Amino acid sequence: MKIGAYYRGNGRCEFCVWAPFAEHVELRVLSGDGRTLPMERDGSGYWRVQARDVHPGCLYLYRLDRNRERPDPASCFQPHGVHGPSQVIDHDAFKWRDGGWQGIPLSEMIMYELHTGTFTPRGSFSAVIPLLDGLRDLGINAVELMPVAQFPGERNWGYDGVYPFAVQNSYGGPEGLKHLVNECHARGIAVILDVVYNHLGPEGNYLWDYGPYFTDRYRTPWGQAINFDGPYSNDVRNFFLENALHWFRHYHIDALRLDAIHGIYDMSAVPFLRELAAGVEEFSRREGRKFHLIAESDMNNSYAVRPESAGGLGLDALWCDDFHHSLHALVTGERKGYYMDFGGVGHFAKALREGFVYSGQYSEFRKRNHGNSSSDIPPDRFVVFSQNHDQIGNRMRGERLSALVSFELQKLAAGAVILSPYIPLLFMGEEYGETAPFLFFTSHSDHELVRAVREGRKREFSSFMWDEEPPDPQDVETFMRSRLSWDRRRHGRHRVLLGLYRDLIRLRKGLPAVTNPDRACLDVRSDEERKLVIVRRWKGEDEVLMLFNFGRADVKTDYLHHEIKWTKVLDSSDKKLKGPGALSPDRTGPGKEVMLRAESFVLYTGGNMRAVPL
Amino acid sequence: MKIGAYYRGNGRCEFCVWAPFAEHVELRVLSGDGRTLPMERDGSGYWRVQARDVHPGCLYLYRLDRNRERPDPASCFQPHGVHGPSQVIDHDAFKWRDGGWQGIPLSEMIMYELHTGTFTPRGSFSAVIPLLDGLRDLGINAVELMPVAQFPGERNWGYDGVYPFAVQNSYGGPEGLKHLVNECHARGIAVILDVVYNHLGPEGNYLWDYGPYFTDRYRTPWGQAINFDGPYSNDVRNFFLENALHWFRHYHIDALRLDAIHGIYDMSAVPFLRELAAGVEEFSRREGRKFHLIAESDMNNSYAVRPESAGGLGLDALWCDDFHHSLHALVTGERKGYYMDFGGVGHFAKALREGFVYSGQYSEFRKRNHGNSSSDIPPDRFVVFSQNHDQIGNRMRGERLSALVSFELQKLAAGAVILSPYIPLLFMGEEYGETAPFLFFTSHSDHELVRAVREGRKREFSSFMWDEEPPDPQDVETFMRSRLSWDRRRHGRHRVLLGLYRDLIRLRKGLPAVTNPDRACLDVRSDEERKLVIVRRWKGEDEVLMLFNFGRADVKTDYLHHEIKWTKVLDSSDKKLKGPGALSPDRTGPGKEVMLRAESFVLYTGGNMRAVPL
Repeated sequence: MKIGAYYRGNGRCEFCVWAPFAEHVELRVLSGDGRTLPMERDGSGYWRVQARDVHPGCLYLYRLDRNRERPDPASCFQPHGVHGPSQVIDHDAFKWRDGGWQGIPLSEMIMYELHTGTFTPRGSFSAVIPLLDGLRDLGINAVELMPVAQFPGERNWGYDGVYPFAVQNSYGGPEGLKHLVNECHARGIAVILDVVYNHLGPEGNYLWDYGPYFTDRYRTPWGQAINFDGPYSNDVRNFFLENALHWFRHYHIDALRLDAIHGIYDMSAVPFLRELAAGVEEFSRREGRKFHLIAESDMNNSYAVRPESAGGLGLDALWCDDFHHSLHALVTGERKGYYMDFGGVGHFAKALREGFVYSGQYSEFRKRNHGNSSSDIPPDRFVVFSQNHDQIGNRMRGERLSALVSFELQKLAAGAVILSPYIPLLFMGEEYGETAPFLFFTSHSDHELVRAVREGRKREFSSFMWDEEPPDPQDVETFMRSRLSWDRRRHGRHRVLLGLYRDLIRLRKGLPAVTNPDRACLDVRSDEERKLVIVRRWKGEDEVLMLFNFGRADVKTDYLHHEIKWTKVLDSSDKKLKGPGALSPDRTGPGKEVMLRAESFVLYTGGNMRAVPL
Repeated sequence: MKIGAYYRGNGRCEFCVWAPFAEHVELRVLSGDGRTLPMERDGSGYWRVQARDVHPGCLYLYRLDRNRERPDPASCFQPHGVHGPSQVIDHDAFKWRDGGWQGIPLSEMIMYELHTGTFTPRGSFSAVIPLLDGLRDLGINAVELMPVAQFPGERNWGYDGVYPFAVQNSYGGPEGLKHLVNECHARGIAVILDVVYNHLGPEGNYLWDYGPYFTDRYRTPWGQAINFDGPYSNDVRNFFLENALHWFRHYHIDALRLDAIHGIYDMSAVPFLRELAAGVEEFSRREGRKFHLIAESDMNNSYAVRPESAGGLGLDALWCDDFHHSLHALVTGERKGYYMDFGGVGHFAKALREGFVYSGQYSEFRKRNHGNSSSDIPPDRFVVFSQNHDQIGNRMRGERLSALVSFELQKLAAGAVILSPYIPLLFMGEEYGETAPFLFFTSHSDHELVRAVREGRKREFSSFMWDEEPPDPQDVETFMRSRLSWDRRRHGRHRVLLGLYRDLIRLRKGLPAVTNPDRACLDVRSDEERKLVIVRRWKGEDEVLMLFNFGRADVKTDYLHHEIKWTKVLDSSDKKLKGPGALSPDRTGPGKEVMLRAESFVLYTGGNMRAVPL
């Protein structure tokens, strides 16, 4: 069921809004002298009108029961923000130049998460475009945008969005986003969009006035749960299903990243997410190209990415937090909060081997058994990272790894992510070791809410940081401090790190054994005492051997696979990489040993594989 | 993890209770002069003590943090009710005589649901025993007891139980139940026990004092949800998992009926019910006989009975409410509440064919799409009925079908259930057309609660019955009115109906085509205009043809399967069955027509099948 304002050309526009309990709904056209048009209700509570003399750019509201004037829940654009009127958009007017675009298979993606507001000084979609060539040269072929749905004010991570169909006005609105996607596709870069289907933000949410979008049967940490399984949930589901297709259809988005699906409470026999996956699958078939659904989940439930025939939801991929946590705990030594469940090289080895580290065993942090096994899930169904907006930004001081660990460990983390069997994701600036923090920031206008968010933030960190207050989310300075400082990447270690990321991505794409997403061609060993993780991967007779030393001391390893002669491709401790100097030999083989620098990794190729020139 | 009091013989008894947040727990032994024994805590919050000079029958309490004395959450017996002390039980002392008992396969069960308190004038387990021969002669081979876990007072359906391991004192306690099971098994009758794992009753629930058994993340209609997926849920799950095994182990119960699993809120990667099913499977393997889990669910979710390998919970069977609703709506003509979704013979035909009538389509009553398909689920995974405690007792006046429909329709309903491909369940008294109501009754002692329950009951029915107040649940008269009047079955139509039930069960067991639980050997047709449902079932060359006329007029049917000559076995309108007289021929075949009386059914056999003498 299509909802919102559909411009048909020649000043004709169709409006449709769901308001099942309203007794009267009118369209208020605000252009010219203003007009009020009666709308007609169908049996399911959808109100419609075909308006004439309504042109793109025209502002409108709905008038409910003759008294409340409200923006459109499915508004495509809120030029004056969350409390203002909605605007008619002519989606057919945009000149797409990506005719032959077929997308990028998930297994080949190198993802790059960025926050439009802090990625550049201007903080807009158009300001991203000049940087795309640099990303492409780095090897990135998928840009993931943090949520762009209209949120209150100009500064927000995006998870406070309240118009799921609208594109943030301060970023450049619908036109800006389309232009950015067009430019990405022109460079062979796919666009992934982060969408939030588990809650709406706390300011500017007028969905309450329209219908039973919410339920009090469940409680989420972010406010009232969305009604995905109660009475009238068909129409709520339709709203979000149409939202997914909206991004594919009108913005040529390649994949959606579904925020925190553990906040989508749904006990029904056909869960919303299964219906969504089937709907997107059907849409992909019709369009002749694959659109992807990638979910974030806190549940370590492999059924999210199993097919419906195996009782799964049928989503395409899942963020793998356990991979992050096990790597982060190893390189930082942190053990607070959820890191208490990690810290051994065995944890990281399991993440490499299976995906979920917690596959049913007891989690000390959660005080219960956690997860089920993902050992049979193909690796290209997991997205992995050493950093992302949450893992950085949910720290009180918003420190990136660059502010927490040595340069050697930053290189090690890069190798661990990019040479893994999974889909790697970088967080903007990670590639050159950006040192600016990524802090939590907002720009609400509701004073009570501002106070509540500030207090909440203080409370969140009060238990373990009592000598320091968290930065004020509402302070514009908090936002400014979170912006990238691009000049850094040209200098010193930043430049070296950038080069290493580029080389690693090139190796990942170029070495069949690294590209191969087959778990059967993967052997992972770990040595807790020496803090070593040794990974062998192959495809046919091509082999790679990766030696990761997470320890603080140089060590010797004698695991060199039988019969194979190995040629070194990369040692992160190399002087060329501003390391202390490699100890590993250029060539080695059976019966020999390899010395590894502390906090370093080495990559060898073997078998029939030719070394890839860097 | 075993919990509760375990008597080891010679006055030695082990006590174990989970109280993770308590700082101090003691055992108070109330026998003799009374003693207080300190208990020792393990790392998971279980407190234990090995006591001496504690004998079966000894009363005890736990003393928490030196001030609150509470009964044992895993008490096996509460001789003085929900607020009194717990009693040590020696489970090994009972003399079982069911050594060779191997249970009954689900597919062969003929179930009979009974409420111990109202089944007999004495309302005890022992009073049931003299009636078992009659049930066996009727053909019943599985008695299903409504919940017997200790509830407040003496009058309750059982869903207000607050000691999941204890056997209701007023019914005869642990000894009484074991004796009843022993006597059932001696007669070849299995025992199914109704257990409630979705909530605890509102009075006498002391679990709050022990640990995080409950959660406020979800809301149930019956009070706070049980914590199956939050912190500490491993131990909460252990409590209920041990409860299931407790009934199998110490009471030789054959199957559990899990009450309203849609009230078990659980978002975890390994749902409690899957863990329970796996635990019972493992226990069955160890014991060398199959214990069953049968669930009630309001979700029409076939995954409940799919195996884990297909993403299911792995339960053995499911109550099929849609079968009931479609049959009830047909025979009564009722269309209020959930019956608004039913009423056509097509609905009932679909229930016969697939199980769920609502397999994903829109439900007017629920205001959303409902269910998923069960068309590939084997019929012996569904339990069906024309009446049960809920469907009768949740009516304001508690009317059985006998008070709502004609005698002819009662016979028709009996045939529809017992000749169906599913597992039939009778509600006590149905077999002879008991006319007493089955009302909702309680005997709480908390006055505030009594008032609240009364008010709730009035509110529930106020919307459609404003000229009449519901019977007072707390009034002893309400309970008395709900008791069976056994003498009825010897007279007139009651006696005839009883004979028909006996014949139908005998036919179900004796005719291979009726016994056959293979959906591939089932052909169901319906004719909305003539209100006809025609079912053909076969096994090999044995065939049966059943013609159900739900209409108020005599009709002709010409659906007689190709080539086959049919021999009549039964016509419910027969004068022998106190009907208006059969119109159907004794023998018929291709090209011929059969006349059917209004509100009747006819059963023919064909193929190689010999008619079963009645």
